Amino acid sequence: MDNKLMLMIPGPTPVPESVLLAMAKHPIGHRSGDFAKIMEEVTHGLKWLHQTQNDVLILAASGTGAMEAGIINFLSAGDRVLVGSNGKFGDRWAQVSKAYGLAVEVISAEWGQPLDPAVFRERLEADTEKTIKAVIITHSETSTGVINDLETINRFVKAHGEALIIVDTVTSLGACNVPVDEWGLDVVASGSQKGYMIPPGLSFVAVGPKAWKAYETATLPKFYFDLGKYKKDAAKNSNPFTPPVNLFYALQAALKLMQAEGLDSIFARHHRLMSATRAAVQALGLPLFAPEGAGSPSITAVIPDQVDAEQIRSIMKKRYDILLAGGQDHLKGKIFRIGHLGFVSDRDILTAIGALEATLQELGYKGATVGEGVAAAAKILAQ
Amino acid sequence: MDNKLMLMIPGPTPVPESVLLAMAKHPIGHRSGDFAKIMEEVTHGLKWLHQTQNDVLILAASGTGAMEAGIINFLSAGDRVLVGSNGKFGDRWAQVSKAYGLAVEVISAEWGQPLDPAVFRERLEADTEKTIKAVIITHSETSTGVINDLETINRFVKAHGEALIIVDTVTSLGACNVPVDEWGLDVVASGSQKGYMIPPGLSFVAVGPKAWKAYETATLPKFYFDLGKYKKDAAKNSNPFTPPVNLFYALQAALKLMQAEGLDSIFARHHRLMSATRAAVQALGLPLFAPEGAGSPSITAVIPDQVDAEQIRSIMKKRYDILLAGGQDHLKGKIFRIGHLGFVSDRDILTAIGALEATLQELGYKGATVGEGVAAAAKILAQ
Repeated sequence: MDNKLMLMIPGPTPVPESVLLAMAKHPIGHRSGDFAKIMEEVTHGLKWLHQTQNDVLILAASGTGAMEAGIINFLSAGDRVLVGSNGKFGDRWAQVSKAYGLAVEVISAEWGQPLDPAVFRERLEADTEKTIKAVIITHSETSTGVINDLETINRFVKAHGEALIIVDTVTSLGACNVPVDEWGLDVVASGSQKGYMIPPGLSFVAVGPKAWKAYETATLPKFYFDLGKYKKDAAKNSNPFTPPVNLFYALQAALKLMQAEGLDSIFARHHRLMSATRAAVQALGLPLFAPEGAGSPSITAVIPDQVDAEQIRSIMKKRYDILLAGGQDHLKGKIFRIGHLGFVSDRDILTAIGALEATLQELGYKGATVGEGVAAAAKILAQ
Repeated sequence: MDNKLMLMIPGPTPVPESVLLAMAKHPIGHRSGDFAKIMEEVTHGLKWLHQTQNDVLILAASGTGAMEAGIINFLSAGDRVLVGSNGKFGDRWAQVSKAYGLAVEVISAEWGQPLDPAVFRERLEADTEKTIKAVIITHSETSTGVINDLETINRFVKAHGEALIIVDTVTSLGACNVPVDEWGLDVVASGSQKGYMIPPGLSFVAVGPKAWKAYETATLPKFYFDLGKYKKDAAKNSNPFTPPVNLFYALQAALKLMQAEGLDSIFARHHRLMSATRAAVQALGLPLFAPEGAGSPSITAVIPDQVDAEQIRSIMKKRYDILLAGGQDHLKGKIFRIGHLGFVSDRDILTAIGALEATLQELGYKGATVGEGVAAAAKILAQ
């Protein structure tokens, strides 16, 4: 049905009406006092969301731009870095690092499995010469629905003492606890079309004092993504380059909604959505791709064996106007992914699971009795 | 008055209602067939606007991002380039080029004066060894309201035969004739919040075959701004990184309006707005900053001697809700700039000049009789 599409993908995520309407306001001048007030308010909100007293800088770019900025501002060609990779976005960290001539050592895990913190520990402890300049990882691996144990890996980085921790929190920030200052995360990158509940076009980089110290000696070339410029201008509630004014309106409206809900409630909601989704998928006899305890709070990947993943996605879209994500790269056609990130409620999970059951029935699936998925989800949601 | 602001700055420019409302639509998945249709349509529209059969690529970034992409994709560290600079944005080309280690030779003119094509000719003709890899210039210098003679300078570049021509058309594209293929412009960068009539957040790079040839051997590091990725994905009506879906809705709506008006009408309108504004300013006895024949079609800079530029801007804003631009860098406080770019009509010029006359009266200005500005503008507009 036209205009009925429901997004259950890991981005763009659903956008609240107040945020959509905020975007339809006429832009104002980005060098005006009125815009400076918006800049001040959203910067304050971003620090709250990141649980940091340090800088959170706003870029006009997609999440990959923030990732790249997170690397090129703090490292130099030839620097030795450990890059965790267990999915498409971990791979991307490695690609960006290689594009800039870093000496990349990839620590990988199979797609669908979390990174093993012990391998990081081993590599970091062996580095008595302190040649490792950074450990670069993806927190929630969007391509597989796996969450990596950032807290533990970061503890080993802290024990090392020299290396920076650089993290992609694109689908974890605003979905689960990422206490930037408490954990001492040096560089944290994220994007607007995710937990932020606004359309794509903005990305964010939180930068701590240790990273700023590295910035002073980092020699990779940069201009548009030179975060020093953004920091300097943010101090005056301004931006070095024209900011996407209407997306700032959206950010302002969305941060208001998030602050009204509160961080703990936001995290609890995402945990509940994940648990209900996983329970429902299991009740339907469909194999989960991420093991128990490593499921992302924002996305659940399913690897069906008796039905075709793409057929499920196709019927969900055509018959029920629900967009699910497919697999990426070598997982194309093998998995489907249910997004439950951002402006997603308990009701949405019941809706998606109900439609999934109807879809399975249409496909002649014999693995479960219709209703078992919704029943399992309802049990969790009603707790 | 609240919500009454009228933008007469060179960006963000006024946005039509249909474009604002398009942005308030819920985003769709950027990997969907529906989005591919939008991508196809806007790419087609962009080629029409650029008068090119070659690529026009869309970046999630402000105009500076497109400028940077225009350099780093086609050049290598140490490459000799001629950079024209007669204002803030020419200076920025030089800064970007230096940040990436190019061997920069700046050809400058005083702010407020156009670049002298003869200097480019001399330098290019003297380069019998063909060591000049690119000539990099700003077409309409937004900071001073001066248009540079791109057509003539480009003729000398073509006579040289080796060098690429790389142009910032941020405030000329969609305001005056920039026939990319006819002139053989190799790299052309622009931004959404200008002639495009949409809010900031997108920028554009047109790339011709000679530039793609240079791309093959260019060695500057890049990832997010690697235009090869954008070209490859554009061929499938897709994007390498998540595109700002709602700004694409806006682009789609704005290109429809532009196509309905037609290129010749758009250019004629901007020429008329410029002529009327310049005539009115002169009739009011206020000195124009750009000399006759070098006025930008999108912005008129005024350097008042008997009244204070910032006082004019302040009263225009407070009493009449019209935002004018001030001077930048060393011109701060010395000039004011009237934007007439994008969604601006004859009526808007009469409005702005009328308010300027009332403002001058409030300031006790004796240089002209009230009404002479509107009369001069009206004479041009009524032709």
